[in-house]
Amino acid sequence: MEFLRNTWYAAAWSDEIAPGSLFQRKLLNTDVLFYRLSGGGLVAMDDRCPHRFAPLRLGKLVGDRVQCPYHGLEFDGSGACVHNPHGDGRIPGRARVQSYPVAERLGVVWIWMGDPALADAEAVPELPGLDPVVFTVNRGYINVDAHYELVADNLLDSSHIAYLHPDLGSDGVTEAQTAIRQAGDAVHVDRFMPGETLPRFLDLVYDMGGRPGDRWLEVSWQPPAVIEVRISVGPAGSPRAQARQRPTYHLITPETDWTCHYFWSSGRDFRHDDSRLHAMLQEGIARIFETEDKPMIEAQQQTIGRVDFDMLSPIPLAGDGGVFKTRSILRKLIAQERVGRTDPMRQVPVGASS
Amino acid sequence: MEFLRNTWYAAAWSDEIAPGSLFQRKLLNTDVLFYRLSGGGLVAMDDRCPHRFAPLRLGKLVGDRVQCPYHGLEFDGSGACVHNPHGDGRIPGRARVQSYPVAERLGVVWIWMGDPALADAEAVPELPGLDPVVFTVNRGYINVDAHYELVADNLLDSSHIAYLHPDLGSDGVTEAQTAIRQAGDAVHVDRFMPGETLPRFLDLVYDMGGRPGDRWLEVSWQPPAVIEVRISVGPAGSPRAQARQRPTYHLITPETDWTCHYFWSSGRDFRHDDSRLHAMLQEGIARIFETEDKPMIEAQQQTIGRVDFDMLSPIPLAGDGGVFKTRSILRKLIAQERVGRTDPMRQVPVGASS
Amino acid sequence: MEFLRNTWYAAAWSDEIAPGSLFQRKLLNTDVLFYRLSGGGLVAMDDRCPHRFAPLRLGKLVGDRVQCPYHGLEFDGSGACVHNPHGDGRIPGRARVQSYPVAERLGVVWIWMGDPALADAEAVPELPGLDPVVFTVNRGYINVDAHYELVADNLLDSSHIAYLHPDLGSDGVTEAQTAIRQAGDAVHVDRFMPGETLPRFLDLVYDMGGRPGDRWLEVSWQPPAVIEVRISVGPAGSPRAQARQRPTYHLITPETDWTCHYFWSSGRDFRHDDSRLHAMLQEGIARIFETEDKPMIEAQQQTIGRVDFDMLSPIPLAGDGGVFKTRSILRKLIAQERVGRTDPMRQVPVGASS
Repeated sequence: MEFLRNTWYAAAWSDEIAPGSLFQRKLLNTDVLFYRLSGGGLVAMDDRCPHRFAPLRLGKLVGDRVQCPYHGLEFDGSGACVHNPHGDGRIPGRARVQSYPVAERLGVVWIWMGDPALADAEAVPELPGLDPVVFTVNRGYINVDAHYELVADNLLDSSHIAYLHPDLGSDGVTEAQTAIRQAGDAVHVDRFMPGETLPRFLDLVYDMGGRPGDRWLEVSWQPPAVIEVRISVGPAGSPRAQARQRPTYHLITPETDWTCHYFWSSGRDFRHDDSRLHAMLQEGIARIFETEDKPMIEAQQQTIGRVDFDMLSPIPLAGDGGVFKTRSILRKLIAQERVGRTDPMRQVPVGASS
Repeated sequence: MEFLRNTWYAAAWSDEIAPGSLFQRKLLNTDVLFYRLSGGGLVAMDDRCPHRFAPLRLGKLVGDRVQCPYHGLEFDGSGACVHNPHGDGRIPGRARVQSYPVAERLGVVWIWMGDPALADAEAVPELPGLDPVVFTVNRGYINVDAHYELVADNLLDSSHIAYLHPDLGSDGVTEAQTAIRQAGDAVHVDRFMPGETLPRFLDLVYDMGGRPGDRWLEVSWQPPAVIEVRISVGPAGSPRAQARQRPTYHLITPETDWTCHYFWSSGRDFRHDDSRLHAMLQEGIARIFETEDKPMIEAQQQTIGRVDFDMLSPIPLAGDGGVFKTRSILRKLIAQERVGRTDPMRQVPVGASS
Repeated sequence: MEFLRNTWYAAAWSDEIAPGSLFQRKLLNTDVLFYRLSGGGLVAMDDRCPHRFAPLRLGKLVGDRVQCPYHGLEFDGSGACVHNPHGDGRIPGRARVQSYPVAERLGVVWIWMGDPALADAEAVPELPGLDPVVFTVNRGYINVDAHYELVADNLLDSSHIAYLHPDLGSDGVTEAQTAIRQAGDAVHVDRFMPGETLPRFLDLVYDMGGRPGDRWLEVSWQPPAVIEVRISVGPAGSPRAQARQRPTYHLITPETDWTCHYFWSSGRDFRHDDSRLHAMLQEGIARIFETEDKPMIEAQQQTIGRVDFDMLSPIPLAGDGGVFKTRSILRKLIAQERVGRTDPMRQVPVGASS
């Protein structure tokens, strides 16, 4: 499996990485160690000492350095070895741990696992629906035993909702016209379900009391697998601007070739102080993902086996436009990256006349 | 590993597939879904939707159709997609699940996983010892972590009984002359132990009260791994026709290359209404298979590792005639099938003068 | 992975192999069966019947023979089949189990898994520190999920002690000058820490009562992975000859490519009858190995993955001299053995003029 490297992946929720402690997560088949510098900065590096390959996560923080648990080498936040307690204390030239550019924004930790020189702070995904000034936010994390693209496929395709999610689905979702747009490398898949009686869970969340509502379901994907699903509901026939907004994010990051991390959030611009609603959303969303989506996606992966999904010639249905578009964009970007790495024009000798 | 394809394999006991429900079993490395049509017919198909490869067993029956749990496609008993709830409802040409010929006879469900055109209802194994008019029958199912031929070998070779089964064996079994006959592709291995004091379990089953008996042990194998072991016991010196008959069947079907399904039955033409005997047989036979044969066969597989048994040059003993014969017949049939599939004579262009 | 074959490996503590019983252990990827002959001799052979490959350990001892649990073949201590209860009782020519030269000395069972003709009883490692006339000995066994050389590396390198073992380490150990000597294929790594306050555990063991002591830490390695660590402690400034001696042995044997057996012992020439000290050593040493070394070495292996350590270009530190020397000796010996096996001079045709 080949992953897109020169891009930002969601690595953690900010509060998973507590000050003064070491946090480890496997990302793109690599064990990564995270910790916070005393000045507040965040660092990420390989969780592997270059001396005997002990995992640094079993060591300890000594000020802004991580100390290897096995022989006490110390590394600073750049991954450079800055203390060797043995012999004459000289630090071998290669004594360095690979570090990674990171960014932290609105409670999400992002990591760049490609060429560090290309890491672009401007390209960190904007997730305005996590802004605490505007939205009250629920969050969660799930580990899924499936290729990360299967989780992204699930989110891009609302046509499964009526079948997999009795508390969310309706015939309206299945029948709704789907508008698919591509904008650059982003893909948008929108559905509008006017004047429907909302499924129970949504009726409670949007406080509809059984009255018919208009529902907008707007999915936006950007590579590699950063997905917003904006769910807006208002009384049937009322203007869109008056609808209640619930931007939800779904940040999918490969853990290994066949497992992934799934960070989810759900913001709302209404009933901010309703702690009962807050608890209901936290429990309800986690339950839907953990007992409906995750088992289905894992069963799907089991059935497929450890082979590339695209090799299996899946039958396309009407709801799959988004899935095919995003998969094809991702393939294109990965292919471009591969070409970039082996481009012979980049290896023209210095002084050559090209 | 290569399996014989154009043959009937035991797939289930009939009562494992309850009306109105979906039943799944992995057979020859393939997940197969079974269910009953409202008219009583039985169907078998791949447990894998061709759209996103969700396992259909997690779906539900809608009349005579199975509905995919993920996006609601519906398939009829032939595996054809007959309902698409999405878009314009058109059914894509390739939206079809591979189905398999099945047959049901005397409580056994059989499946044909080769070329459906060759499936021959006449060739379904006759197992008269399951006929409830004549015999009272115990049955069971065991999953074995071993190549299916190791289980068949065990049944073909009665010389292990004295060592592995203290409740069944006797010196007589080890010393008895073995008659081996091949009839077509079937193999028969017979032993006669006249005038022996029967081992405790058999003494109880045949109600011998410690008197000496004559015992016939007749094993019949037919490919791929359908085995009858007929155990007949009568008072020493009395005519064979008066012996009590106990036809037992042992239907072995590959689950994967390295695991198998073992369906066993034991019929008796005596003491039909003796519920205590019935319970003793059920418990006793299951215990012998589960605590004596299965652990030995699984330990044997562990010791061998995941390599082809025949590559290991096993030392042949006197009791192995049946094992070598059946293995060689099976190899021959598999080789013939392989040739059939690639026979260049079958690809002579239409109109060629051959 | 390639192991040195023509050498003695520690296989068991003598008391693991009780008279009248069968003992099995996997060594160098091979299941080996051990038992004692009635005359006291010890035998080792493959735990695998040549008939159907049943594991002999599930069988039983019949006098000095092991009886196969499946079909009753019997093998003597040389691995020869000496009884076949089937048919005419003739023993097939190839009915023989591979046996291995063994030696037993001072409570250690050694096995030679190379060419039996080369097995040299004189070459069995001398471990005088196990002599019960001189030393009172604690012993233990640990199974480690790591390549056996990682365990040897750990023992050769005392520079990790201060970091991994708070009860054993001191700044003195880290700072001490290391003397490395090679003598033939053996490697010695010595450290001397004069006039230090001993860590708590050692202070108790050597009964120092907090007084400063001189400590000698002398590590000797011989291939494949037989290691002595002699720890000597005396009052600061007193002659070496008066120091209390604690020779400890660490016998490491591959179980598989990625797991190993670790036999440890600790002898002392002082406080022989102190049962409280004896229990403290037993508990304390086992705890240090099981809760400090083993988890670190297994985490190290996990981080490395199943690849050859030497391929990873580890960064060398001052304490690694012994590790690099021993690894290089072992590589050399394995390479010599490989050459020996394929030496073309050994294949000169009979009668050739060379």
